[in-house]
This record gives sequence, C-alpha cells and structure tokens, in this order.
Amino acid sequence: MSAMDDLMAYQRDTEALGQVAGRLEWDQETMMPRGAAEQRGEEIGALEGILHARRTDPRIGDWLEKAEPEDEVDEAYLRHIRRSFERQTKIPAALAVELARVTSVAQGIWAEARAANDVEQFLPTLEKVVALKREQAAHLADGGDLYDALIDDYEEGATAESLGAMFDRMRPRLVALRAAVMGAAHQPAPLRGHFPAEAQMRLARKLASGFGYDWACGRLDLSVHPFSSGSGTDTRITTRVVEGDPFNCFYSTIHETGHACYEQGVDADYLLTPLGGGVSMGVHESQSRIYENQLGRSRPFTGWLYAQMTDTFGDLGLGDAEAFHGAVNRVHAGFIRTEADEVHYNLHIMLRFALERELIGGTLEVRDLEEAWNTRFAQDFGVAVDQPAHGMLQDVHWSVGLFGYFPTYALGNVYAGCLNKALRAAVPGMDEALARGDATPATEWLRENLQRHGGLYRPRDTVRRACGFEPDEGPLLDYLEAKFSEIYGL
Amino acid sequence: MSAMDDLMAYQRDTEALGQVAGRLEWDQETMMPRGAAEQRGEEIGALEGILHARRTDPRIGDWLEKAEPEDEVDEAYLRHIRRSFERQTKIPAALAVELARVTSVAQGIWAEARAANDVEQFLPTLEKVVALKREQAAHLADGGDLYDALIDDYEEGATAESLGAMFDRMRPRLVALRAAVMGAAHQPAPLRGHFPAEAQMRLARKLASGFGYDWACGRLDLSVHPFSSGSGTDTRITTRVVEGDPFNCFYSTIHETGHACYEQGVDADYLLTPLGGGVSMGVHESQSRIYENQLGRSRPFTGWLYAQMTDTFGDLGLGDAEAFHGAVNRVHAGFIRTEADEVHYNLHIMLRFALERELIGGTLEVRDLEEAWNTRFAQDFGVAVDQPAHGMLQDVHWSVGLFGYFPTYALGNVYAGCLNKALRAAVPGMDEALARGDATPATEWLRENLQRHGGLYRPRDTVRRACGFEPDEGPLLDYLEAKFSEIYGL
Repeated sequence: MSAMDDLMAYQRDTEALGQVAGRLEWDQETMMPRGAAEQRGEEIGALEGILHARRTDPRIGDWLEKAEPEDEVDEAYLRHIRRSFERQTKIPAALAVELARVTSVAQGIWAEARAANDVEQFLPTLEKVVALKREQAAHLADGGDLYDALIDDYEEGATAESLGAMFDRMRPRLVALRAAVMGAAHQPAPLRGHFPAEAQMRLARKLASGFGYDWACGRLDLSVHPFSSGSGTDTRITTRVVEGDPFNCFYSTIHETGHACYEQGVDADYLLTPLGGGVSMGVHESQSRIYENQLGRSRPFTGWLYAQMTDTFGDLGLGDAEAFHGAVNRVHAGFIRTEADEVHYNLHIMLRFALERELIGGTLEVRDLEEAWNTRFAQDFGVAVDQPAHGMLQDVHWSVGLFGYFPTYALGNVYAGCLNKALRAAVPGMDEALARGDATPATEWLRENLQRHGGLYRPRDTVRRACGFEPDEGPLLDYLEAKFSEIYGL
Repeated sequence: MSAMDDLMAYQRDTEALGQVAGRLEWDQETMMPRGAAEQRGEEIGALEGILHARRTDPRIGDWLEKAEPEDEVDEAYLRHIRRSFERQTKIPAALAVELARVTSVAQGIWAEARAANDVEQFLPTLEKVVALKREQAAHLADGGDLYDALIDDYEEGATAESLGAMFDRMRPRLVALRAAVMGAAHQPAPLRGHFPAEAQMRLARKLASGFGYDWACGRLDLSVHPFSSGSGTDTRITTRVVEGDPFNCFYSTIHETGHACYEQGVDADYLLTPLGGGVSMGVHESQSRIYENQLGRSRPFTGWLYAQMTDTFGDLGLGDAEAFHGAVNRVHAGFIRTEADEVHYNLHIMLRFALERELIGGTLEVRDLEEAWNTRFAQDFGVAVDQPAHGMLQDVHWSVGLFGYFPTYALGNVYAGCLNKALRAAVPGMDEALARGDATPATEWLRENLQRHGGLYRPRDTVRRACGFEPDEGPLLDYLEAKFSEIYGL
C-alpha cells in the first residue's frame, strides 16, 4: 500500500463516520423521541470526539508528505485533506474545547434572550464568542485578514474584500428595486385559505419528483426547520407544513430538493471521499436557490402549480394563474431574514456581512452592535426595527460562532443568477418543460455541468466552468429587476 | 483521575458509540432508502471498526489491573468490562476477520439455498462456519467445553450440561402435552377476516401503552421482522402488519414492548455503562415472553382485547370472548419455529440445541445434520419434515455463526414461567387489571424486582433474586399444562 492508498483508506472511514454523524442529526430532528435528547448529546459527543481525533491524527501529516497523486482527482483529494488537516491542527486543542463549550451554552442563552426580547442578556455571551472566534481566526489567518480566515471555512477562496466590493455594487440596485416595488400601485394579493397537511405533503412529493429527486436514495419527512442531510445514496430532505401557508411547505421542499439533487448528482466514484459532496456552502446554496427561485417561482412553473393546487384544494380565491404568480412572488416588508422574499433577502445578508466583518475585524464592539444593526436596517429597508427579536437577536448563527457563514447565502443567490443565465442559453424548451411541472432538464444540465464534479474544482471555478463566464452579480440583479418590474408594473 | 475513572470515562464513550450503531441498525430496518444499502454497509463497517479497536485497546488491560472498585456497582462494571475485554482479546485478529468475512457471505448463500430448497448448496459454507466457530470456541474455552464457550457469549454462566439436563426433563412433558392437545376433540377455531392496517397500528399503540411502554423514550414503527433497539431513554420498537392476521401485529408488539420495557426500566444511573441494558439474552427473552404469553395471552387480557377488537373491527365471527381466547392460544402443527405456539415453541429450540451442541462438540458432521434434524423432528412433532426450507434451512442463525444463541429462547420461557409464578403471588388484583387492558402493575413489579438492576447481577442471579427461589422448568411446564388442558378440555 502506498501512502496515497493508506491515506485514502483512512479518509474513507472518516467520511463514512461523518455520514453517520449526519444520520444522527437527521434522526434527532425527525424521529428521535423527545426524552432521548440528553442521551443523544452524549452519543453525538462520543462520535464527534472520534471524528476530531481522526481529523487531527498526526499520521495524516506523514501521509500527506509522502503521497504521490497520479491525476487531478488525486490532487483534489490531497488538497481537501491537507486543507482540513491544516485548519484543524492550527487551532490549539484548549481553544477548540473552550469554543465548543461556550457556543453550546451560548445557544441556550441566545434563545432565552430572544424569547425575552432582551439584548443585554445576550451581550456578555456574544462578547465571549466573538473574542474566541477572533482568537481562532488569528490562529488560522497566519497574519492575514481574520474574517477571511473564517469565511474560508465555508467558502474556500472567498474574501471579505471581493464579497464586500460585490455587495457594494448590489446594494444600491436592490435598495432601489425594493423601494420601487413597495411603492408600486399594483400589489398582488396574498394566498389565503386552509390547506390540509396531508394534501400539501402529497403535492410536496410531486414537486420533489418534478425536480428529479431520486426517491430510491432519499426520503421526505417533517421537521421544525427544513433541511437536507447526507450524501451519495442516502440524501434525505425535510419540510414543514403550515396549513394556512402552503408555499412554506412547497418552496422549502423545492429548496431542499436543490441541495439534495446536488448531493445525489455527485459522481458516484467520489462517494465517501473528500470530493463526494457539494464543494462549498455558496455553491450548495446556488443549487437550492436556482431550484426554488429561478425555476420554482418562474411563470411557467407557477402556472403548472396553480393547476395542481386548484385540482387539489379547489378554487384558491385568486382569480387566475397570473394572480397566483403574483401571490407566489409577492414582495412584503418584514424584519425576518428567513421569511424574506427574493428582493429583500440579499439586503438581510449584506447587513449581517457588514456587521460581522466589523465585529471580527475589531472595528465594532459587541455593545454597539444593536445600534449599528438598527441604523443599517432603517437605511436599507426603509423601516425601523420594532424589537430586538426582530433585529440582531433573530438568527442563531452568531451564538454558535458561525461568523463568515452568512455571505455564502447571498453568494449562492449570485451564483444561481449566473447559472440560470447559462442554463437558459444552453437548454431550449426549458419553459415548456417547467409548464408541465418538469424541471428535470434543468437538473440534468446542472448535473452534467456542475453537480457531478463534487469537490473536484474550487468553488468559484466550479461555477465558472458551468457558466462559461466569470460569475458576478449582474445576472442576478438583471433577473430580479426584470422579473419584479414585470410583476409590479414598474 | 483514578484508573477506575479513566476506564469508566473511556467505557462511556464506547457504550455511546454502541448505541449509535444500534440507531443505524434501527434506521436500516425502518427508514433507510433502499438505494443506500451499500453505502450504509461502509458506514456501519467504519463504526464497527472503531468499536472493535476501542474494545480491544490495550489500555483497558492496564486500567483493569489498577482500577480499585469502591462498591458492588464498581465491581459489576469491572466484571463486565473484563469479561468483554478478555473475550475480545482471546480471539486472534485474523480469525475475527475471517469469521466476519465468511459469515457475511454465508448469509447470502443460506438465503439462496433456502429459496432453492437445496441443502447441498449450503453444506460447504456451513462446514466452513462450523469449523471457524469451533476454532473461535477453542480460543475462548481455555481447555473447557467448546459449546459452553459459545453459549457464554449470550448467557453468562449457562452451560450445555445444565441446559441439556433441564431440556431432558422438559421434553417428555412437552411432547406428551403436544400430543394430547393435537388429539383433543375440541379444537378452537382460528380468527379469520380482514383487519385494516391503520386500525391494527392504533390498537398496537394502545397495547404498548397498556404494558407501560414510555413513549417519551421510544417509538413504534414497521419493519419486516419486529425488533426492539436501543437502551435507556431511546428504546424503539417495531412491529409488522398482516391484514389477515392481526395477532401477528399485536403479539409482536407486546413481545417487543417486553424487551423495550426492560431497557427502559434499568436504573438511570447505569445509563451508558456496562450495566445499562438487559443482562443477557435469556433474561431479555423472559421479559418479552412473560409480556407476550403469561400476561398478553391470559384469559383476562384476551377478554379485554376481544372487546377492543370488536369495537374496532366489528363482529369477529368467533361467537364470544371464550372462543376468542381459544383462537389467540390455538395450538397448530407447523414446521417453522417463528410461527410456533407456546406448546410447540420449546420443542423447536431443544431440537436446535441438541444438534448445534453436537456440531460444535464434533460428534455430528455437517453432512449428517439434515438427517439428524428430520429424525428428531419426527420424534418430537409427530410429523415428517416435508422440505429443507421447513427443516434445517429455516433459520438464519447458523449461517451467521450464532451457535449457542438458540437455547436462550427456551431459557427465557423458563424464566418467564418462574417470574409469572412470583409475580402472581406478589401482586394481588393482577387479573382485574389485565381485564382492563392494564398490565402496568406487572411492569412495575418486574421493574422493581428485576429490570432496574440491568447488568448488576449475573443472569441467573437476577432471576433468582426477583423470584425468591431457584429458577427451573417446573413453573413453566405447570403453567402450560394447566392452561392448555383447560382450553382443550384435556
């Protein structure tokens, strides 16, 4: 056995154990009896301990030194393993333990503070988390930018500078679009009514099938927060059902189907290797977003969905498919990121990006965060935050130390915009297929041009290769302006 | 940290990882998408590799040498850990690998041979498995009896000699009872009809509740073969539904509820320790059997079930509760162990015990097994085996190397007989409660007197302490003779 073989055999078991951890998380959110929470914590803790020990095993360093790659796939394997090993070993064990301890407690304190609408209650904890993340970033950054070092964990190669410049270009156009849409004379009516859970779930399954989700290698269940989980031949999705709001179930399902199709679409040869899943958070989000928005909220597809829903639920009280398209794409004021429409969403992200960049950079103190949030929110959204639970306390991310994660959501939207442009140019008859509820031509194109590569190329290269051009914010903004101008008669 | 503390902390993680493996098995039988089988094999393999390495880690030997127990609980911890460590380390790694390899292939070959009804197809493989199990037993036995060494894995302290003597005492009484029952003039009619799956499952949940199953720490799902899984606060059960035979679902559910209540009833202090589950296969089976048979098939309980079923399904076409009791307890000729009634069941086990004892002892050749099986079957069951799939090819056990496992089923029945005698003497009003569908007084007594101890005492001592007398076959045989004499008017 060569060093390369040894390393890959070792890595394969680690990947398999990582999948096991994923199964446990899926079970916890879908199936686990409520009384098992504490015991499950110990079970996951034991498994994470094994995984951490494996990922920092000094033998990896030896193998990496001796391993001789034979092709670009081997090189990509080594690149991923080296990257993970170096990140893990740069962080002192004591700091890793302290971070795990503090963020685990912080999540509970954050939840209580949000429930109590009390920022003060959360600040000392958030200060601790920020201090520890800055310390962690300093170990990772090798003298470089602290925030870049954190972003790199979720999006290899992305930097605060390039993201910041892109967001600066996006912001004025989005703010202007938002203001125009909200001030438009024509405002689509929202969908109202009661939509029984079982019928919603039947249609949700049909939606997932329509996007090419492979049921032999996955399943759909309910959870409080929708998610997708697992890689390769076991890629499961969840959704939720609100009987007054079927779009919640349907578009969560389509979103998670996008994530899952990406995982299912990776070349089977990469199963249980470092290339065997989506390459980054941003590219992952590009798949979920293009499925959800550019495809799932397109006029031909909502036309088909309108017919499905009237068949299932009877008259929807909206008049026609055109009004239904408006209801699906309705832009509404709101404080909460997770409830935001396509026009507002990226403004939420840019706000968080700007603030966390400053927090990690040391130019914004935690105690000044609320004011900074509220000021920026008023600028971009045209309304004042009415309570902390609708402001800086709304997201769990910071309490658990996820700094550098938020921008990948907006990057996913930007990539989705680029991929949609390329897809439309490459696949004729897309709209006709969507009008039949069939998005599989899109999945096939995405699989062939992006999904199958898994982690073979770097994130941005993965998207560039699929698009045939350098990705930037242009196609997304053009798409948003065209779509919402038309719907709102701007 | 003392050696005792180090050892227990290490063991706790191992126990937690063992629970994780259990969750994966549960998932595989209930939830896993069918396309994930191969990937799952790798995931389980990686986890089993970790578990095996942990269980044979040389540090355990050092800790065991230095650990100083402070009380009987510590002593029991050390006893279990030492026992497991010694068993694992006595077997050469190459033999363990070869056994795993051969039995994994053998299971498939057995399944094909059974489907083809072809003994010859299976014999070379079974010969290999027997030879490897004899080799394994020789490593474990330290010059003692080979078969004892294998039994000891499932039932600490049980020996072929004591089991053989007990089975020799049971056999004539069971053979006589079987003949008398089958020759009786009065034969109860079987239940016939169509019983919708959903209604069966609703009643199955009610049954589990009636026996005190804690739903906050468990759940009920469907699987091909019913099983219970997990320990402590996450103890799940499965059942199956055959729409023409609701007793299949109901009594499988009660049986698995017995296993699960045992796990749920273990003292919470023992969670994720070597004492945190049922102490042995035999004692485990005593819980499932007393729930299923002595309680669940008792006249007061079937009276309640009759009312429930007529409420749910309408007229059952049997006439009255008495006829229903007869249908539940109907004794029927049959070749298959898993379909056997209370009168036939132990005869199936004794046959397998006698044959596998000789196979492992070297006094019966694999090529002579079929004839030996068929001869013995004709003697005890009064009919000739009509085809190998109904004879020596019916069970999976031998193909996967489970020699020494069968006798624990009969031992469980014997223990259930003893516990039932003690329970009836100790708990007044048992029949009145059962007549209301309430078996929780039995669960409470069993929890207090047996279940809560987990692995604290040795298996036989566990039962003896609960009963207040030395367990033997007497109470079971008395119970069977009385019950079936009455039902069949002997």
